[in-house]
Amino acid sequence: MYWYATGIPGIGKTGAEKMNYRFADRMQRVPESFLGELFRVSRHPGIISFAGGLPDTSLIDAPGIAAAAREVMEEEGPLALQYSTTDGYLPLREYIAARYRTRLGIPAEAAEIQIVNGSQQCLDLVAKIFCNPGDPIGMERPGYLGAIEAFSLYEPVVYGVDLCDDGPDLAMFGRVVEEHSPKFFYGIPNSQNPSGRSYAAETRRAIARILEGTDTVFYEDDAFGELFFDGRPRPPVKKHLPERGILSGSFSKIVAPGMRIGWLLAPEPVLTQFNVAKQAADLHSNFLCQVILHRYLSSFDLDAHAQRVAAVYAERCRVMCDLLDDLLPAGVTHTTPEGGMFLMAFLPDHISSMDVFREGVRQKVAVLPGVPFYVNGGGDHSIRLNFSRSTAEEIKEGMARLAGVIRSLS
Amino acid sequence: MYWYATGIPGIGKTGAEKMNYRFADRMQRVPESFLGELFRVSRHPGIISFAGGLPDTSLIDAPGIAAAAREVMEEEGPLALQYSTTDGYLPLREYIAARYRTRLGIPAEAAEIQIVNGSQQCLDLVAKIFCNPGDPIGMERPGYLGAIEAFSLYEPVVYGVDLCDDGPDLAMFGRVVEEHSPKFFYGIPNSQNPSGRSYAAETRRAIARILEGTDTVFYEDDAFGELFFDGRPRPPVKKHLPERGILSGSFSKIVAPGMRIGWLLAPEPVLTQFNVAKQAADLHSNFLCQVILHRYLSSFDLDAHAQRVAAVYAERCRVMCDLLDDLLPAGVTHTTPEGGMFLMAFLPDHISSMDVFREGVRQKVAVLPGVPFYVNGGGDHSIRLNFSRSTAEEIKEGMARLAGVIRSLS
Repeated sequence: MYWYATGIPGIGKTGAEKMNYRFADRMQRVPESFLGELFRVSRHPGIISFAGGLPDTSLIDAPGIAAAAREVMEEEGPLALQYSTTDGYLPLREYIAARYRTRLGIPAEAAEIQIVNGSQQCLDLVAKIFCNPGDPIGMERPGYLGAIEAFSLYEPVVYGVDLCDDGPDLAMFGRVVEEHSPKFFYGIPNSQNPSGRSYAAETRRAIARILEGTDTVFYEDDAFGELFFDGRPRPPVKKHLPERGILSGSFSKIVAPGMRIGWLLAPEPVLTQFNVAKQAADLHSNFLCQVILHRYLSSFDLDAHAQRVAAVYAERCRVMCDLLDDLLPAGVTHTTPEGGMFLMAFLPDHISSMDVFREGVRQKVAVLPGVPFYVNGGGDHSIRLNFSRSTAEEIKEGMARLAGVIRSLS
Repeated sequence: MYWYATGIPGIGKTGAEKMNYRFADRMQRVPESFLGELFRVSRHPGIISFAGGLPDTSLIDAPGIAAAAREVMEEEGPLALQYSTTDGYLPLREYIAARYRTRLGIPAEAAEIQIVNGSQQCLDLVAKIFCNPGDPIGMERPGYLGAIEAFSLYEPVVYGVDLCDDGPDLAMFGRVVEEHSPKFFYGIPNSQNPSGRSYAAETRRAIARILEGTDTVFYEDDAFGELFFDGRPRPPVKKHLPERGILSGSFSKIVAPGMRIGWLLAPEPVLTQFNVAKQAADLHSNFLCQVILHRYLSSFDLDAHAQRVAAVYAERCRVMCDLLDDLLPAGVTHTTPEGGMFLMAFLPDHISSMDVFREGVRQKVAVLPGVPFYVNGGGDHSIRLNFSRSTAEEIKEGMARLAGVIRSLS
């Protein structure tokens, strides 16, 4: 495989010589991730994993989606397989807009909605349209890891605001807005990933009051808002702040993640820029799945389905919280989610979540250490626990193992 | 809808006041686009449009894809609807790798392939992992518009290299590489969009020789390589330059664009960074369509299908070229594609392509002015013509109209 020097310039330099790839500086900004290693470990046979973040596969209505797919392919196959517009399938955008109007009382129109590849793509493109390197942005601490990763590639300066039981610490939030004027503040007001916390109604109003008259956008990620255990929708911050609020949503948690269909609802000037970035990123989202999804939703009671999913997760969450209270040593506390798929447990100061992770693997229970969720450091004494993917039986066995792990480290 | 001042700080500022959205500087870099307007105009009733870039919908095998979709939904529906890994569906990546080995003699492995949302996403993510603002990159002139748009958002300095009938001007290419050391050079060696030109075999080898020993990556976009009219595959530049070559491909032109499935083949160090960027961008590509596509391809002769498509386009291209020769005034020249979906016509110096566009709309024939394809200016006397979407009858009528347009401007 070696080539020999010929004496002719440019010929005979060995193809095997070391290539120097000159990557962009931004690639150094992605937080060191031990997650790949962690996910590999969590798949070891016999491990009960609370480390992941998947919805329960058995709650996906595969037969219903199959029927919709069959109809679409029979009736409009060739067109659903052709290129389409960047903004997305209009009937699907109209469905989403109508749902905002009826469910949340937001006067949304299809023209304000852009379809994306799951709401993760909003994280990438919102940062892209707003952030120069060094620009200030704000986010919750702990915050969503996928957001930290997506934002970091645009090299912003990230100001973390502590997330308390009823939402961001308002004094700290106000200070960050006043002193640093972040381009946007990113948060998950409903059943946050990783903490499971939801903003109180009064916190939502207070945030809107603080932001009014500023040039800071509130970027609200609503991946879990349909999974409140009590079935009651919570008004988004955007309702109080129409011009300064952008709101992303997703069908991943209530229909099917594998279709990768989410959306952004935003005021026209933002959506115009977002659309430019979306077109440059991938022309448009998978059109076939947009058409199938719309067909599916047209004859499907999504509210009832979401409530069935939420009821299953509610029971699993209750079992997990009860066992955390009953089995874990004193000094371990946890959040008590009103919805979603995650909760967070907090360990005594002398126990590191990384040790819990390592010892957990030995005792066959996987958890996610809190460290990567905390911008600007910290979080070593917290762990994220997922309750959507495990049965009550698995949660019982897993919590017993976790109690053993923490006791062995105490 | 107006709120009244209350005297309480933060309350009563009117929600209707003008919000100042502070977008990133990069959003200023996207070339002014008249394409939206143009595409709207091209859809006017009665217009024959050569301005678009779509494959012929009637050549999409919707029944075959429908059958594959049915099987997937019946046999593995829930799993195909769940989250998946960032790199993509392994059997699909194995299929693509095997095809490189058998079709092009490239020793590709699934581990070197990342699935993306159509090869447009490669343009975004390759620029993302390589380009700091101000970094040098190179590309063909004229060049693919989607690439110019995607790259521009990373604010590189773009060096255009004239694209001649047999590939990039080699002296100019060598000078750009030596003087500016571009991070990568982007090109479409097979039936380029917009020009329809293909690199000669000797040009491919010469490019490899010039790049050997440099730190410039050759980024080769192979959207049309399966649509050579003679059915003969052309070896990619990467074959001569394994460590410095990255190669994107797509099922959009030979299976179905609406599924948005493409891929990148790249050396491991590049793919590792690319994978980080892909995960931050959207976690993974639509998994349902990856599984359906793989199922479809497993029992389908893609080579034979691609040749059927190519034969249809070959005939349309021939009709268009003949009519350009027969009907258009002296002084109009054109490229003669060996494959793909586009050709380029060149007008005499006194005729502007923008005038041809405007007068064309009046005479009900739409063409794409060349200007946006030329980085660093120029191109006003060229037009891009698409021949994949129109029947021979439409091409005949459209060329007659175009001849009238150009004659009226002479």
